Amino acid sequence: MAHRFRATLRGPADLVITQVGELDSSASGAIAFIMNPKYLPALKRTSVAAVILTERLLEHYQGPALVTKNPHACFARIAGWLNPEARPAAGIHATGAVDPGARVAASAAIGAYAIIEQGAVIGEDVVIGPGCFVGRGSVVGRGSCLHARVFVAHGCRIGEECIIHPGAVVGSDGFGFALEEGKWIKVPQLGGVCIGDRVEIGANTTIDRGALHDTLIGNGVKLDNLIQIAHNVEIGEDTAIAACVGIAGSTRIGKRCMIGGQVGIAGHLEIADDVQVLGKSLVAGSIREAGVYSASVKAERADAWRRNVARLNQLDDIARRLRELEKRISAESTKADKE
Amino acid sequence: MAHRFRATLRGPADLVITQVGELDSSASGAIAFIMNPKYLPALKRTSVAAVILTERLLEHYQGPALVTKNPHACFARIAGWLNPEARPAAGIHATGAVDPGARVAASAAIGAYAIIEQGAVIGEDVVIGPGCFVGRGSVVGRGSCLHARVFVAHGCRIGEECIIHPGAVVGSDGFGFALEEGKWIKVPQLGGVCIGDRVEIGANTTIDRGALHDTLIGNGVKLDNLIQIAHNVEIGEDTAIAACVGIAGSTRIGKRCMIGGQVGIAGHLEIADDVQVLGKSLVAGSIREAGVYSASVKAERADAWRRNVARLNQLDDIARRLRELEKRISAESTKADKE
Amino acid sequence: MAHRFRATLRGPADLVITQVGELDSSASGAIAFIMNPKYLPALKRTSVAAVILTERLLEHYQGPALVTKNPHACFARIAGWLNPEARPAAGIHATGAVDPGARVAASAAIGAYAIIEQGAVIGEDVVIGPGCFVGRGSVVGRGSCLHARVFVAHGCRIGEECIIHPGAVVGSDGFGFALEEGKWIKVPQLGGVCIGDRVEIGANTTIDRGALHDTLIGNGVKLDNLIQIAHNVEIGEDTAIAACVGIAGSTRIGKRCMIGGQVGIAGHLEIADDVQVLGKSLVAGSIREAGVYSASVKAERADAWRRNVARLNQLDDIARRLRELEKRISAESTKADKE
Repeated sequence: MAHRFRATLRGPADLVITQVGELDSSASGAIAFIMNPKYLPALKRTSVAAVILTERLLEHYQGPALVTKNPHACFARIAGWLNPEARPAAGIHATGAVDPGARVAASAAIGAYAIIEQGAVIGEDVVIGPGCFVGRGSVVGRGSCLHARVFVAHGCRIGEECIIHPGAVVGSDGFGFALEEGKWIKVPQLGGVCIGDRVEIGANTTIDRGALHDTLIGNGVKLDNLIQIAHNVEIGEDTAIAACVGIAGSTRIGKRCMIGGQVGIAGHLEIADDVQVLGKSLVAGSIREAGVYSASVKAERADAWRRNVARLNQLDDIARRLRELEKRISAESTKADKE
Repeated sequence: MAHRFRATLRGPADLVITQVGELDSSASGAIAFIMNPKYLPALKRTSVAAVILTERLLEHYQGPALVTKNPHACFARIAGWLNPEARPAAGIHATGAVDPGARVAASAAIGAYAIIEQGAVIGEDVVIGPGCFVGRGSVVGRGSCLHARVFVAHGCRIGEECIIHPGAVVGSDGFGFALEEGKWIKVPQLGGVCIGDRVEIGANTTIDRGALHDTLIGNGVKLDNLIQIAHNVEIGEDTAIAACVGIAGSTRIGKRCMIGGQVGIAGHLEIADDVQVLGKSLVAGSIREAGVYSASVKAERADAWRRNVARLNQLDDIARRLRELEKRISAESTKADKE
Repeated sequence: MAHRFRATLRGPADLVITQVGELDSSASGAIAFIMNPKYLPALKRTSVAAVILTERLLEHYQGPALVTKNPHACFARIAGWLNPEARPAAGIHATGAVDPGARVAASAAIGAYAIIEQGAVIGEDVVIGPGCFVGRGSVVGRGSCLHARVFVAHGCRIGEECIIHPGAVVGSDGFGFALEEGKWIKVPQLGGVCIGDRVEIGANTTIDRGALHDTLIGNGVKLDNLIQIAHNVEIGEDTAIAACVGIAGSTRIGKRCMIGGQVGIAGHLEIADDVQVLGKSLVAGSIREAGVYSASVKAERADAWRRNVARLNQLDDIARRLRELEKRISAESTKADKE
């Protein structure tokens, strides 16, 4: 059994685990994990039924243990196994409005007041929650789950085993206008959205359809809540993006990137693989190399901050005056040396 | 009558007020308020039927007045009394999908296309607007109002007399993943969301359920639109948060805090009671003391700004060179003194 | 035909165009445009059926061309003409809940599970998508389209030929509270929202109703996704606002402004006509003159950034010490001159 979770059991083979918890949990049958040595005191005090830990921390704990290289991943797998998602029964709810020209797999579940338009294809084991909308010709792949009130426009593709949370909007028009004599003329958004497998999309996140080609979200991408993905953005595999991020049009983000909360990324940029951007930063130019990037400024006491930030507008002046002083002193000491 | 609004009437006892307005309102029967002396000119010109003001400003106005310590609060109460919310009639709309295993109070109103799942409990005088969703086992307390299209997931608790605006999502999964060899493994989100009494939640705001324990929103908390509250955040009583704020996981915010618009607060922090954070600031460390905090930088003309901000990347260098110059000049004048 | 798109045809009068594309498109019958000379290499290589360009670039291309002053606008018009919106048939869907006291034009289309409340007026050729809500007494003008799941509260007015994307919320309560002894008292929001003609509103964008007067969105305004417009904001004609912007209460924005993504604008400000604010900036004071404004700071390598940003808190000190040095050196050189 431990093997299934990529771990080795140290302890009784008949160990019974009923739920995951934290080290300070008092629930019976709980299993917790520890990765960070700073929690060693909690480990010493713990009364959980078993602990997931690395070989290295094993000596600090005498009780039943699952030993593994990656306790957090092991914990996630056990938690998932102990808490399978409650999936609704297969079939179309009496109030589900499925167009006769749509194709819904027999094992799929379509919720109350959901709408499936003509030509849409709903795969095996898919869950379409109550109030969801899947537009003309869109495809939802095997095993994906759209929680309640998800909107998927026409001509979009959702891969397999995706999870989309309530209020998310996939395939709304990109923000494309031509300016003519001070007025905006709408540019029709003719592309779609193509989402890979195992993608998770957070609540009220919006992903716009492309202008001419598709907006692309790679396999394994994880998007938090209230994120804006503009038209023709491409996001590489296994990139994770925290809440409230905005990504402007046609920007390409690499694989395995980690984008912090409230980050803004300008349009038409290239971000390399394995780039990490810290929370609230603005990415205004392409990033060609992996690494950690930041423009975050930490809040301070407002009175001190105001004094300091006021000088920001003098910064160029300060730099010039400093250079001036340096030159002058350098000249004077040369003069002095000569005298 | 004035007493009911914590005020004293100066003027005719048969004064008739029909609506609230501003000092420059020309509507008949209007009542306005003044707190800030900068509006004294408007007070002198006003033709409203009555004015709410403090003792201190009373001498500046001869007409009918309600005298009170807090004119804004008095105005709010009178406005509420003159404009009671139009509540729909009690009962379940013909298209409301209420599970037989849910418990709905007779005085509650369930709107069109609303869905109430098994085990949910809807209290007395509750309004569940059209298209809302209340998941398995969730509780909505007495007198609360969920406007149209609110989503409350399973296992959540909304207190009494709460107001939740359209598109808000309560109880979506927290953004929890374990990283294993470059891939993300979902960590099931097993907690819920627990919301106190008299909480207001803005349109399209999202509040994630906890990972193991509940996300907690205290009594009297006011949340504006498009806010993201991550899993296991705790918000203390009577804290008010403006629009577009993002709060990362497990952060605890104190009581009576005021968080400005677009503020970002990192995860696992502690924010004390009575902290005020100015708009667009990043809170990246715990704040242990009450007070006002800021990292806001005001927009300037772009050309001047670009010149100054370019120097930011030289700031450490500037500071070092300045220190160098100071030492050198200090050494020289010591030398000069000795000569 | 070219005339209809404000262009002159150079090439065969029987030129057949079937779709818009990019210069590198290999589709037959495609028409592309070029504005920026940096794409001249792509122009030389292109195999599209025709190109839209200016007089000035005409010499660089030998094939069929549409010559016009504004190729992007011409492209937008042709794209729109080739790709008319698929409008649903007129009539009320069997599951559309239209109150008998509402007025729906015969040419309007009301989608599945849409709700039109008493006294609402739905104009000619309007499309109300599935799951939309139009509240008591609200008006939707001729030719406007509300995509799925749009919420329009009571007492609001949408002009003609507007487009509103899924999840948008128009007319939710403004964030208005009076503070009394540490508690918030709700101030009823009695105004509405008044939206002009040809306005586009992005997915999950929220526009709050006014406190006493209406929130006003001028003709031709374009709003991207996930924008927050607070109560009593006024936005002038043809202003375009990118995603994730937040605008606080009672601020007035001029005509033809362009507001970048994630910009925050504080409350009670005046922004002149023709102001451009660069992405992620904070506007904390009124802007009286047209021009480009910014407070954007670009992300850098985190280690270099941390070193520099740490000095921000010393900036006032640095400026004072520099001034001190300047004075001292100036005094010394005066002294030296005298000696």
